[in-house]
Amino acid sequence: MKRIRLLVSYDGTDYCGWQIQPNGITIEEILNEKLKKLTGEDIHVIGASRTDSGVHALGNVAVFDTDSPIPPERMAYALNQKLPADIVIVKSEEVPPDWHPRYQEQISKTYEYHIYNAQIPDPLKRRYSTFVSFPLDVGKMQDGAAYLEGEHDFASFCNIRTNAENTVRRIDRIEIEKEDRDITIRVTGNGFLYNMVRIIAGTLIRVGRGFYTPEKVKEILEAEERTEAGVTAPPEGLTLVKIEYGMSAG
Amino acid sequence: MKRIRLLVSYDGTDYCGWQIQPNGITIEEILNEKLKKLTGEDIHVIGASRTDSGVHALGNVAVFDTDSPIPPERMAYALNQKLPADIVIVKSEEVPPDWHPRYQEQISKTYEYHIYNAQIPDPLKRRYSTFVSFPLDVGKMQDGAAYLEGEHDFASFCNIRTNAENTVRRIDRIEIEKEDRDITIRVTGNGFLYNMVRIIAGTLIRVGRGFYTPEKVKEILEAEERTEAGVTAPPEGLTLVKIEYGMSAG
Repeated sequence: MKRIRLLVSYDGTDYCGWQIQPNGITIEEILNEKLKKLTGEDIHVIGASRTDSGVHALGNVAVFDTDSPIPPERMAYALNQKLPADIVIVKSEEVPPDWHPRYQEQISKTYEYHIYNAQIPDPLKRRYSTFVSFPLDVGKMQDGAAYLEGEHDFASFCNIRTNAENTVRRIDRIEIEKEDRDITIRVTGNGFLYNMVRIIAGTLIRVGRGFYTPEKVKEILEAEERTEAGVTAPPEGLTLVKIEYGMSAG
Repeated sequence: MKRIRLLVSYDGTDYCGWQIQPNGITIEEILNEKLKKLTGEDIHVIGASRTDSGVHALGNVAVFDTDSPIPPERMAYALNQKLPADIVIVKSEEVPPDWHPRYQEQISKTYEYHIYNAQIPDPLKRRYSTFVSFPLDVGKMQDGAAYLEGEHDFASFCNIRTNAENTVRRIDRIEIEKEDRDITIRVTGNGFLYNMVRIIAGTLIRVGRGFYTPEKVKEILEAEERTEAGVTAPPEGLTLVKIEYGMSAG
């Protein structure tokens, strides 16, 4: 029995997120189904990030155990032959049998939230960014975002339907870049609560629009109350870019 | 009766091109249908470019005649409320009653052909670019493309199912840019034959791959025979970026 790690990218538009659920097709379900076809075994992948419905990924991570004779490095190629075009395995490799994608000493995740800031929507951007028609002040968004860096209790930036016992997380870096009409919020941290990046994006959009001062972000953070923050920004703007594991990750 | 000009953008992925046809939904058909709902009149738009199935546009142009009291400038907004998210009217304005989007003294069209050149496909790029896994030499592609600039008989770069009597066209500029793994072929000219940009792209991909020398492009052009050129590159990589009209355009 070998444990194989997959680096998984997908266009989440047509999926009900990562995790198997009764009411729609999910990434996890498709991977299990195609791995069963490939190996003949009942396979259940374990994912690192249970991305929400409509959210994309360039570098989600999953593992599964198999007795298949397919060499671990070839598994990506073999699986891509069976997967639909909107799910692509970037890499496959063997890891130690106890390696788990969510329980590692050091984990760093990077998300990007994409905003298309123009007067008229662009139909070629609509799947991978959120359209905002009123002008956003990126300098103010950067000022507001700076309050979120470091270790904080992010209870105000967490969907109330969460079951997280501990809402303390560490954001190592938030960068906001503007290129032409595209604004990217890039967030790197050791973990994210349910909807956290989308609530951060929704809050910073309010700052950019002038509804909130940058200092309001500090107040929201200190309130530790979800109702204080801005609305949850739509899923299509969000992409899980990468997950990095520390030295202990094997 | 007023003539109104529309600047139309669309994601062509789910459409059988611009022109109405029996076997699938087209952009022209959707525009006629929504304009009928908006005005109560039987409206038939006239398009500037009959883009192919799967091809995108940021700036196609169309006109129609109406007695509607909706101010011409507001027509874009009114129509966008009824259109699906993959078709967007960027602008609407009144033009003289005899202004025709295909018959103008000076017309300049710009297309972009997008290639994603990497070892593994990116599911977030698949709708708007063509995936090429073997390395492409952009310098050689540029050398080959240079032979196409100017006025030539482009019979070798034209789908044989064309009904064009005259295959002479003028390409004012071809630029090829590489940014990271994205290659863009940008072509501006006074008109394009059926599949011309996609056959140019298919031919330049062969040059980039080393199957053709750059000089081979000159030979293909001089042969004036479709069978000489490379294959027609897939539609998803192609976008009609803009159409510019000369002073006579009103």
